[in-house]
Amino acid sequence: MATLFERAAVVGVGLIGGSLALAARQAGLFGRVTGVGRGAANLATALARGIVDRTTHRLEDIGAVDLVVLAAPVRTIPALAAQLAPHLRAGTVVTDVGSVKGSIVGELEKILPASCPFVGAHPIAGSERSGAEVADADLFRGAPCVLTPTDHTDASALQRIEALWQGVGARVMRMSPAEHDRALAWTSHLVHAIAYSLTHAIDATDPAAFACAGPSLRESTRVAASDPILWRDIFLANAPAVLEVMETFTTDLDGLKQAISSGDADEITRRLEAARRARERLDAQR
Amino acid sequence: MATLFERAAVVGVGLIGGSLALAARQAGLFGRVTGVGRGAANLATALARGIVDRTTHRLEDIGAVDLVVLAAPVRTIPALAAQLAPHLRAGTVVTDVGSVKGSIVGELEKILPASCPFVGAHPIAGSERSGAEVADADLFRGAPCVLTPTDHTDASALQRIEALWQGVGARVMRMSPAEHDRALAWTSHLVHAIAYSLTHAIDATDPAAFACAGPSLRESTRVAASDPILWRDIFLANAPAVLEVMETFTTDLDGLKQAISSGDADEITRRLEAARRARERLDAQR
Repeated sequence: MATLFERAAVVGVGLIGGSLALAARQAGLFGRVTGVGRGAANLATALARGIVDRTTHRLEDIGAVDLVVLAAPVRTIPALAAQLAPHLRAGTVVTDVGSVKGSIVGELEKILPASCPFVGAHPIAGSERSGAEVADADLFRGAPCVLTPTDHTDASALQRIEALWQGVGARVMRMSPAEHDRALAWTSHLVHAIAYSLTHAIDATDPAAFACAGPSLRESTRVAASDPILWRDIFLANAPAVLEVMETFTTDLDGLKQAISSGDADEITRRLEAARRARERLDAQR
Repeated sequence: MATLFERAAVVGVGLIGGSLALAARQAGLFGRVTGVGRGAANLATALARGIVDRTTHRLEDIGAVDLVVLAAPVRTIPALAAQLAPHLRAGTVVTDVGSVKGSIVGELEKILPASCPFVGAHPIAGSERSGAEVADADLFRGAPCVLTPTDHTDASALQRIEALWQGVGARVMRMSPAEHDRALAWTSHLVHAIAYSLTHAIDATDPAAFACAGPSLRESTRVAASDPILWRDIFLANAPAVLEVMETFTTDLDGLKQAISSGDADEITRRLEAARRARERLDAQR
């Protein structure tokens, strides 16, 4: 593939940023890559693994680049953008990989210079592990990646960012920031809230039960090993949508509880069969 | 290993019953095995795969056997035991693999002849798939298997059933039926209720969100593809414990919701960190 961005900078060379740099370099989409971060050990790993060519601790030293990928935790992205803004040259495309888009996209469109087009992006991949050490060039293969253009988004920058994610194997979709935040509240944020809460409740009430853990508990609580600070910030950044889907989920679970409590076998069957059909559609869609 | 049961009958040659027969034969723990079931195609598969030597549709034709494994759905086990009872010879050990123990163990101790020792067992393994076709000799390797002896349990039969499960690679534990049902309500029944309800709620409210499904949603809803009738019966058979843990879980999730709603970052962090520590202990315990 032709190089899309000759000089790229990745701010936050963790699982997502590192995997993107690795995949984009292998696909020939990135030329030279600068890794920006605070952790010296992590940057050294990124350099040693060939994820980046050059590293710096300072956003000011990012130099003349064609693309900046903000791959830092959600809460820090606006502050990083503000710090970065005076050092960007005109024409540099800026994108992010944040799990919440409404607040970030709105803020970044205000913070960044008009001459630097911004495209919000969210690759839906990852794991409970983190750092350049676990970066994986195949992480995005077949994974959804949501782009969240607005009325202000530059069409050419949007196309290039779309080509980047397609080039690393992602299945690219476009949604408004609000649509994205609502969908992700369901498919990711609520899933994490449930995993944390289920683990927390067992641990607080009946920790001996963990000895009976089978594959279903292990799988459904795997993400409770994710970084608490990162997830606290995602819950807070997307609070309205997260609270709404928590409420809807709890109401649904209460409905199942009522059916069990009253011994209503037909109602239980109806709910379980509808869920199984939906789950089968999810598998088929892959 | 020495043969533990020269002639065994497995009633219900599905994923669990079929995998046990396969593993026990490979380990030399079972001699000849009769498969009992209603589905002709499934019995033919079991025969073709060498899971059993002989098949029958009729419990009356089980013949003189040293062991009967009741590997049928929870709700049908007491009725099967009642049908089987007149045809058992003295000394035949009877065991089951049901996911709920309180009701089954109590009933079977009454239904079965005093000369036929009963040992309740629950191997915690499986998947959302079913049938002899997916039976797997390695299914129980490293998996917990809970035996639920009572004051009436024959010590020698208990030892033999323990040796059987250890012989197929399971990590055997002993609990009272009530302890088992409470632990499994947490680690399996609630997990399934959540998976069904989460899938049901998304499908009913926001089905387009499924397009954004990442690994966390896929993993945590995998078991929503499980057999609805089987799970309806498990929820009903263990209703008191299931309802109690549903309530405790919902209260915990509400606590997290309150913390998000009021923007209490410290409280969110505290909950997420406690959950992560518990999840790490669960991984370490494997």
